[in-house]
Amino acid sequence: MNTVIPATHLDLIEGPYYAVLTTIAPDGQPENTVVWCSWDGEHVLVNTAEGRRKSANVHKNPKVALTVIDPQNPFRWIDVRGEVEAIVDDADYANINAHALLYEGKEEYYGGVAPAERKDKERRIIFKIRPHRIVAFPS
Amino acid sequence: MNTVIPATHLDLIEGPYYAVLTTIAPDGQPENTVVWCSWDGEHVLVNTAEGRRKSANVHKNPKVALTVIDPQNPFRWIDVRGEVEAIVDDADYANINAHALLYEGKEEYYGGVAPAERKDKERRIIFKIRPHRIVAFPS
Repeated sequence: MNTVIPATHLDLIEGPYYAVLTTIAPDGQPENTVVWCSWDGEHVLVNTAEGRRKSANVHKNPKVALTVIDPQNPFRWIDVRGEVEAIVDDADYANINAHALLYEGKEEYYGGVAPAERKDKERRIIFKIRPHRIVAFPS
Repeated sequence: MNTVIPATHLDLIEGPYYAVLTTIAPDGQPENTVVWCSWDGEHVLVNTAEGRRKSANVHKNPKVALTVIDPQNPFRWIDVRGEVEAIVDDADYANINAHALLYEGKEEYYGGVAPAERKDKERRIIFKIRPHRIVAFPS
């Protein structure tokens, strides 16, 4: 099984494309959300906030899937199946700010919480998703 | 919980947009695939072939999710959580041909199997997905 994003489809993971992230709720229901993502060479990275539903799901069940369809060409997509190997703190917001720069052209992420108030209001975390199987289409 | 596709987002389900369908494998791994879909007023419809992995998954576990991101505007999306309430035969290929017309402008679906050979080679089926929760963004 391929577990590395092929060069032909790396742009879909490195953004700025929007991904569908699937987590599993405690009752077994798959739940999808629209997220930003990136690639560190081994893991797909997704930044979220502690306390959200997908965070709660992943703490209980690390199995996830993530899919990006090229908005310019729906016959071009990448699909990752795997699990969240680690959840790490984005304590200095370097990761979320890097995503905000890439996706929104903004130096600091806003997302409903002003950067100056973030420390008190929102703990940002990074899902490090270890792929078990990657399918890129067309291959 | 809203269980009807709102008029503002019906176009995303009625196509021709590509959806991410999530099924759950027997080992609990969520698996996404890129699919066509439509709406019958109560269910999201997805047409597939018997014997495929997503069909095998759904026979064992009807819980699914389906998400469509507007390719022209990623801040506009619809997300459905629910279950496959029924799997019905598309015996006359009316459903898959309707999808092929909508998505590809073709009177008959091809999909790797010539229409004249389909009867012997491929049993088409329709997942009738009953939504338990629909979120449309922006609401």
